[in-house]
Amino acid sequence: MASSAKPAYQARLDARNGKHTGPTANVAPGHVQANLAILPRALAADFLHFCQLNPKPCPLLAMSEPGDPSLPRLGEDIDIRSDVPRYRVWRNGELVDEPTDIRAYWRDDLVSFLIGCSFSFEEAMLDNGLPVRHIEQGCNVPMYRTNVPTERAGPFGGPLVVSMRPLKAADAIRAIQVTSRFPSVHGAPVHFGDPSLIGIADINRPDYGDAVEIREGEIPVFWACGVTPQSVVAAVKPEFCITHAPGHMLVTDWLNSRVAVL
Amino acid sequence: MASSAKPAYQARLDARNGKHTGPTANVAPGHVQANLAILPRALAADFLHFCQLNPKPCPLLAMSEPGDPSLPRLGEDIDIRSDVPRYRVWRNGELVDEPTDIRAYWRDDLVSFLIGCSFSFEEAMLDNGLPVRHIEQGCNVPMYRTNVPTERAGPFGGPLVVSMRPLKAADAIRAIQVTSRFPSVHGAPVHFGDPSLIGIADINRPDYGDAVEIREGEIPVFWACGVTPQSVVAAVKPEFCITHAPGHMLVTDWLNSRVAVL
Repeated sequence: MASSAKPAYQARLDARNGKHTGPTANVAPGHVQANLAILPRALAADFLHFCQLNPKPCPLLAMSEPGDPSLPRLGEDIDIRSDVPRYRVWRNGELVDEPTDIRAYWRDDLVSFLIGCSFSFEEAMLDNGLPVRHIEQGCNVPMYRTNVPTERAGPFGGPLVVSMRPLKAADAIRAIQVTSRFPSVHGAPVHFGDPSLIGIADINRPDYGDAVEIREGEIPVFWACGVTPQSVVAAVKPEFCITHAPGHMLVTDWLNSRVAVL
Repeated sequence: MASSAKPAYQARLDARNGKHTGPTANVAPGHVQANLAILPRALAADFLHFCQLNPKPCPLLAMSEPGDPSLPRLGEDIDIRSDVPRYRVWRNGELVDEPTDIRAYWRDDLVSFLIGCSFSFEEAMLDNGLPVRHIEQGCNVPMYRTNVPTERAGPFGGPLVVSMRPLKAADAIRAIQVTSRFPSVHGAPVHFGDPSLIGIADINRPDYGDAVEIREGEIPVFWACGVTPQSVVAAVKPEFCITHAPGHMLVTDWLNSRVAVL
């Protein structure tokens, strides 16, 4: 098939066919990857409103029609039931399964939300010669629940979750410029410096992901994080919901350069 | 005269006619103001090279032909010998006069350099609802000699001078975005946070200007400053040189919005 030569499409086919069941970091470099939340139609309008009110943690790239597993806006022939390498299935807030395919769970009332992810701006940071510590250290980005509230919509609300990358001041200034170009993948940081000002008690004990080294002269810089919608959905404990497994994203046909506003 | 209705031109006429001999803060709002350095032709090529090598502290807006007091690029009918409210005349590095007119000092070999000033980006900060502390406190911006070297050109070299504005982290992030739009008036900050990392021993004792209050939760943010070329020229002790008196700038016909790159 001619299209199979396209790296993003090939990545989705590999997920679909069970050839790739791992994290998608460094898969199809240059392509936008997306966080996934699938909710019953009854909750979809409120969740959409929540994304609209909180664009920094929840930059919505696309949503599906109820029951429709395709996402033509994001790529050719996407089947959201199979094209993510690993899923998490939740019932009443409890994790019940981590399958590589959700065809068995599919329902006609399910709506898929695809939300921008920091992989895109991290690529831009690396392209600009900026260090990304958790990539250097080969671990997950550290993430923290803050005391900064999100804007509530229906049952959805709760604290902002942020990711952290330590940078020297001059690099932080450049990183603010670089990531400002990517508003649809979290954009500019929301905070830097003193973690206690946003309710983080211990920078060395992230709530999600792994702690990373902060070196002499470096400042922690915090970006709104796509884990926010997941933690918000988890708090609501919907009767049914599906997300991607952490780090196992949907690889879209979009180029990162396409989501740069400048 | 019809043109006299234009506020920038009127400001220059007022300086020329001795009606205005004070600082130019808030004169002709919305117009670009410029730092002035006038040097003998023998030093002009090296100074131009110095500006080219150090665009953040020395963003050159325009330079004149030797002996020509006009600056058609910057505004109608400019006479650089009279249109700045107050000058400083230097011989061998010694301040010898602070006249309101330099016709008596003019020479056929003098070249004028007009360099962007932070008034332009401060206006953009205020327009974006960001606080500018020294304006709030009605004093001069605090400025510091750093241990960051400039790039040397001929006899010109020495430390970068920075100005400082204290901001909360979220405001600092916005200020970085806002001032990045103005590369020809110093652009984005060069540093924030720990002053000792750029060789500033005591933030409360600026080398030029006035100390300002840094409030709880605020971080000092540092921008390259147009005093850098003045301090560099002073160190060279040229046989003859003229600058503007601090705060007494050339008001140009350019609009601040014109020097925004985005």
